[in-house]
Amino acid sequence: MSQKKSLHALFNPASVAVVGATPDVGKPGGRSLAFLKKFGYRGKIFPINAKYPVIDGLTCYADLAALPEPVDLVILLVPAKAVPDYLRASGAAGARAAVVCTSGFAEAGAAGASLQAELVRAADEFNIAVLGPNCLGMMDLHSGLTATFTTALEAEFTPAAGPVAFVSQSGAMGAAVFAMAQYEGIGIGKFISTGNEAVLDFTDFVEYLSDDPNVSLILGYVEGVRGGRRFIAAARRARAAGKTVALLKVGKSAAGELAARSHTGALSGSAKVYEAAFRRAGVLSVDHVRSLLDLAVALPGQKRAAGRRVGIVSMSGGAGVMMADASVAGGLEVAPLTQSTQDALAKVLPDFVGRANPVDYGPVYGDPNAIEACVELTGSDPNVDMVLVFMGLSPGMAGVVDPHLVRAQERCGKPLILAWMGGPAHGITALRKAGIATFDDPSRAVEMAILLARAGGAVAGPDVPLQAEQTPRAVATQAALRASIVAGQAALSEREVKALMAGYGIPVVPEVLATTVDEAVAAGLRFGNDRPLAVKAEAPELIHKSDAGAVRLRVAPSEAGQAFSEVVAAAARVVGAANVRGALIQPMARPGLEVLAGLRYDPQFGATITVGMGGLTSEVLADVVTEVAPIDHALAHSMLQRLRSAPLFGAFRGAVPRDSEALAGVLVALSQFAMDCGPLLAELDLNPVIVHDVGAGCTVVDGAAVLGVDG
Amino acid sequence: MSQKKSLHALFNPASVAVVGATPDVGKPGGRSLAFLKKFGYRGKIFPINAKYPVIDGLTCYADLAALPEPVDLVILLVPAKAVPDYLRASGAAGARAAVVCTSGFAEAGAAGASLQAELVRAADEFNIAVLGPNCLGMMDLHSGLTATFTTALEAEFTPAAGPVAFVSQSGAMGAAVFAMAQYEGIGIGKFISTGNEAVLDFTDFVEYLSDDPNVSLILGYVEGVRGGRRFIAAARRARAAGKTVALLKVGKSAAGELAARSHTGALSGSAKVYEAAFRRAGVLSVDHVRSLLDLAVALPGQKRAAGRRVGIVSMSGGAGVMMADASVAGGLEVAPLTQSTQDALAKVLPDFVGRANPVDYGPVYGDPNAIEACVELTGSDPNVDMVLVFMGLSPGMAGVVDPHLVRAQERCGKPLILAWMGGPAHGITALRKAGIATFDDPSRAVEMAILLARAGGAVAGPDVPLQAEQTPRAVATQAALRASIVAGQAALSEREVKALMAGYGIPVVPEVLATTVDEAVAAGLRFGNDRPLAVKAEAPELIHKSDAGAVRLRVAPSEAGQAFSEVVAAAARVVGAANVRGALIQPMARPGLEVLAGLRYDPQFGATITVGMGGLTSEVLADVVTEVAPIDHALAHSMLQRLRSAPLFGAFRGAVPRDSEALAGVLVALSQFAMDCGPLLAELDLNPVIVHDVGAGCTVVDGAAVLGVDG
Repeated sequence: MSQKKSLHALFNPASVAVVGATPDVGKPGGRSLAFLKKFGYRGKIFPINAKYPVIDGLTCYADLAALPEPVDLVILLVPAKAVPDYLRASGAAGARAAVVCTSGFAEAGAAGASLQAELVRAADEFNIAVLGPNCLGMMDLHSGLTATFTTALEAEFTPAAGPVAFVSQSGAMGAAVFAMAQYEGIGIGKFISTGNEAVLDFTDFVEYLSDDPNVSLILGYVEGVRGGRRFIAAARRARAAGKTVALLKVGKSAAGELAARSHTGALSGSAKVYEAAFRRAGVLSVDHVRSLLDLAVALPGQKRAAGRRVGIVSMSGGAGVMMADASVAGGLEVAPLTQSTQDALAKVLPDFVGRANPVDYGPVYGDPNAIEACVELTGSDPNVDMVLVFMGLSPGMAGVVDPHLVRAQERCGKPLILAWMGGPAHGITALRKAGIATFDDPSRAVEMAILLARAGGAVAGPDVPLQAEQTPRAVATQAALRASIVAGQAALSEREVKALMAGYGIPVVPEVLATTVDEAVAAGLRFGNDRPLAVKAEAPELIHKSDAGAVRLRVAPSEAGQAFSEVVAAAARVVGAANVRGALIQPMARPGLEVLAGLRYDPQFGATITVGMGGLTSEVLADVVTEVAPIDHALAHSMLQRLRSAPLFGAFRGAVPRDSEALAGVLVALSQFAMDCGPLLAELDLNPVIVHDVGAGCTVVDGAAVLGVDG
Repeated sequence: MSQKKSLHALFNPASVAVVGATPDVGKPGGRSLAFLKKFGYRGKIFPINAKYPVIDGLTCYADLAALPEPVDLVILLVPAKAVPDYLRASGAAGARAAVVCTSGFAEAGAAGASLQAELVRAADEFNIAVLGPNCLGMMDLHSGLTATFTTALEAEFTPAAGPVAFVSQSGAMGAAVFAMAQYEGIGIGKFISTGNEAVLDFTDFVEYLSDDPNVSLILGYVEGVRGGRRFIAAARRARAAGKTVALLKVGKSAAGELAARSHTGALSGSAKVYEAAFRRAGVLSVDHVRSLLDLAVALPGQKRAAGRRVGIVSMSGGAGVMMADASVAGGLEVAPLTQSTQDALAKVLPDFVGRANPVDYGPVYGDPNAIEACVELTGSDPNVDMVLVFMGLSPGMAGVVDPHLVRAQERCGKPLILAWMGGPAHGITALRKAGIATFDDPSRAVEMAILLARAGGAVAGPDVPLQAEQTPRAVATQAALRASIVAGQAALSEREVKALMAGYGIPVVPEVLATTVDEAVAAGLRFGNDRPLAVKAEAPELIHKSDAGAVRLRVAPSEAGQAFSEVVAAAARVVGAANVRGALIQPMARPGLEVLAGLRYDPQFGATITVGMGGLTSEVLADVVTEVAPIDHALAHSMLQRLRSAPLFGAFRGAVPRDSEALAGVLVALSQFAMDCGPLLAELDLNPVIVHDVGAGCTVVDGAAVLGVDG
């Protein structure tokens, strides 16, 4: 079905039928009908209930079949068991969209799940875009459409239809956030509770809202995203259109993740992939539900910071330092102001206070003109991208400082965020109305500055296609993997992994597969009489060879036969002799920095790439960076720079720099390989990849992989 | 002076003189006087002002000399220049304490600093405990004593004198926090703004409050603590008395720290030492000023959690997961409830919702009895130390759910924290009054659960004496260091460091100092004909020998002479030939895990000990733990366990465990050494210390030290 067209019908119906309407606003069917009138929905409203001829002046129909004309949207407030039939009746009545708030579906055990499957069949049959079930519905204050029964709409309702949309996968959280927004006068123009997402899912709404001209800020509460790559594309489109998408993702500590067999699997779990996906999508990831609301205050329209350099203007030296601490901890810069700004500030402030940044306006705290001058001068400094202002107590400033701050913000042309601690509530409300993002807590103000800077930053990395192009190499790779899966293999051996890597131009250590002691001895001499060797059992199912004692390093060629016998025996003890193919004889690679490179196929976001420090300590330090594939060279370099160990790639303490460029090339090639494999490969480790001195390239020394499924 | 006695006079004066009193409450002198009456101060009040015979019914005196009787406390609201003379006059009038709010002292440039020095001389002369200058003063709502002029007291004032004290090094932050506390009905019983701390400092107040029976929670805003060891002792005493000390420390990102010369210096900067000191002191360290106020709600009296296991009871599955995420991220455990608890919950909740933890009470969200049952059952579970409850919206629960939650909290006997998001303000206020710690934001509720668990945990490590006992060994160590300082050395050589270490029983690698090529050749053979050697220049000023090329490793004995020449020449290029004493010839140590152990003398907290991963990567990974000396074996082991690399000490991936016990012994000995040195040694690195397999001990292979001052 064309989601977009259906969502248009959901958000812009010419008529709405409310099945289960009643005059009693104590009941969902009563509230739902009443809200449509209260919020000024301008289309036709058809109450459906056989008990009443008329409700609140509207003709009431006995059933959907009795409607005098086709209806666009049906709101179903009927028992769960009746929903599939009513959905069919809705389709017959011409409905292109439906909202099902009723619970008792997939969230409520096996019987509910089969009822939900029936609901989906009915929706498919009549091509109906269904929101829900088990949700609070939706509302669009721009059109007055309120397809919901939540009591959050019963309160005194003042907020205007703001440019903020909120999509929530939790009804309870959604209603609570909506209520808090009301308390604070924040205008959420569109609210959608997605419920069980039987038909329409979170990604569908992000897609729709990314094109909605009434929306500049898309907030969301997310437990899990379906169609991850579609989601990334939609969020990037929203971002390109100047909108901001900010999400709170829960479930980071979930113990439910499947145990991974490889290092990469263990190191790039679902939480890390979500982080990578959000980063790639240009989504602002927030940690607190409170922050969603604060963003609606701090980020109206297309307000953003051009960079991450903050100027701090504080009534208190201590508060200035505190905000500087929090800014730096959050990745912002607190750069000194230029000398000319400091000179100009010297005309307003006495000698002994801070004027470099933070600027301490304590001595003139009672003078709004002086405050204005400090803020304007700081904001106009070329080293500043946004201004954080602190006021403490100062009840006398309520209604007084407002035009000064508005003028300062306008003149410097940069975002201003005010922390007014201990200030009166009416003073804060007035400032917000005047367009100054004001908070009563410095930590919240700094958090918003951090998010403003992130919202302004460039989205890194290439677009993420749904799947790879079917090049001849991709087709060949897929055929090889399918053959292994069909042959009953669960994993690939080191040799198989390296052969695949070589096919993508990734440099691997040379090797010979020896199947007997004699072959091992002969192979050992092939790399030179005195070049030390690595001897490793070749057995696909043995992922962690070192742990099993199936690897011997720095073996003299004369001892290759003995080493062969040892590692083959050790491997046989773990996976059985039948699964041991022999041993690989390799020359020891030249020394270098040992890194881990790997891929994992994520069920939501598809192929992902991970790089980190390698060797035995990789899992201990967990110094890894994960990105969704594909990546390009620039993103590969950025991954390396984000490692805590990044300095080890440079001229660290006199060492020769490492060949990061070669490693970046490996990552890009691996990412193309990962895209080509799709779900056929679950996990792959290259560990270690030895990164040599600059210009000398890098070498994959070992590898292992877990096969996936032939979807 | 006896600080305690003086502080008693400050907090419990039988009489107060207000110098600069006026009938005009628009002026500080007017407000100060008015507040004393408003808050019911019960002692005698003497306004001092030559202009008025009577103010507000009180006899006004022309000057302090005119007072009819000695006065205990003088509040000075006079121009800065006049303060020293008035202080002397106060002393002459019998005052034992004074509050100086006036600014224009050390914070205001050189002239102010010399005025402050004069103030200190006057205070010393008359033995007066002075609060300030440049502060907001103090107030004690228990006695009605308000020695302050802050407008924060002008508002409608309802809070009772609660068991909370707040000590602030920033006046503006202090007043703002105090005002916010008022808005929220939180009773701060004592408030002290310490200003410039010319005489009384932050530590003095923590010491005093640790014995104050009216105070159970000491909150503080701190920029820097003087007398760090005295502070630790005071906070530990408060803690032992069942009180909680919670501080917000600012200045963590300060670029002002002196550049350190050693690894330990670079890795154990001021921010890390404050962390260590607060941990040792049992201080709750908070990151947000908001958290100080929240603690006053969450931690009244001696409420604490017996452990870090939280039970979560949520109206929304998603909110439950969100709080579980935040709890786990903050170090709490979300352990499954016992089967018998789950069985009991099954009588209240339907089959399909979470009952293991989090408990999802969504299906019964409208039934206060069911909520009570869920909370009580969860709280009574043996796997739970405290309960987090989430409610969303639910305006109908205001005033209804209160007795149910109170009963559940009482019956389970464990702390309960409620996040009520979107709930009405009056409902939240009523719950707080009823003794339920309630917040409108789940993140704040979880943060309080984390702090509650920390407040309940044991304080680790031995007491920290002001200085070491003067044992014969301590005296000898100090003499040796003094001799080096007197001789003009700025640093100690590797050989000197190892000699000192050996004196404390710390195992060091054997070595010979060679001063000629011939000596080097002879020394090389002393450790065996084929044992590889380390050859290192011996030069006290050369802290980073490797960087200078003054170290050769794995040298064959036959090449010792050549290596000697190379390292000596390399060292001479950096520090000059005159500063090179020769080269150390050492056998290469047996392999093992390389760690860094070190000490640093901190100007506030004295000797500190640091341990971390060693070798070239120590500064890159910054995987270190710092503690204030002295430490004992248990704390040394805890330091090792807190390293990210801790698994490397155990049987990691089949390796033999390392001799952690031996390393712990080195740390304890080093800590005793650090105590003995005091400020005579600024920094010392043992890097690497090689930790061998369990039972095989460890070996200090290299060391360097920077001398301190003979204070």
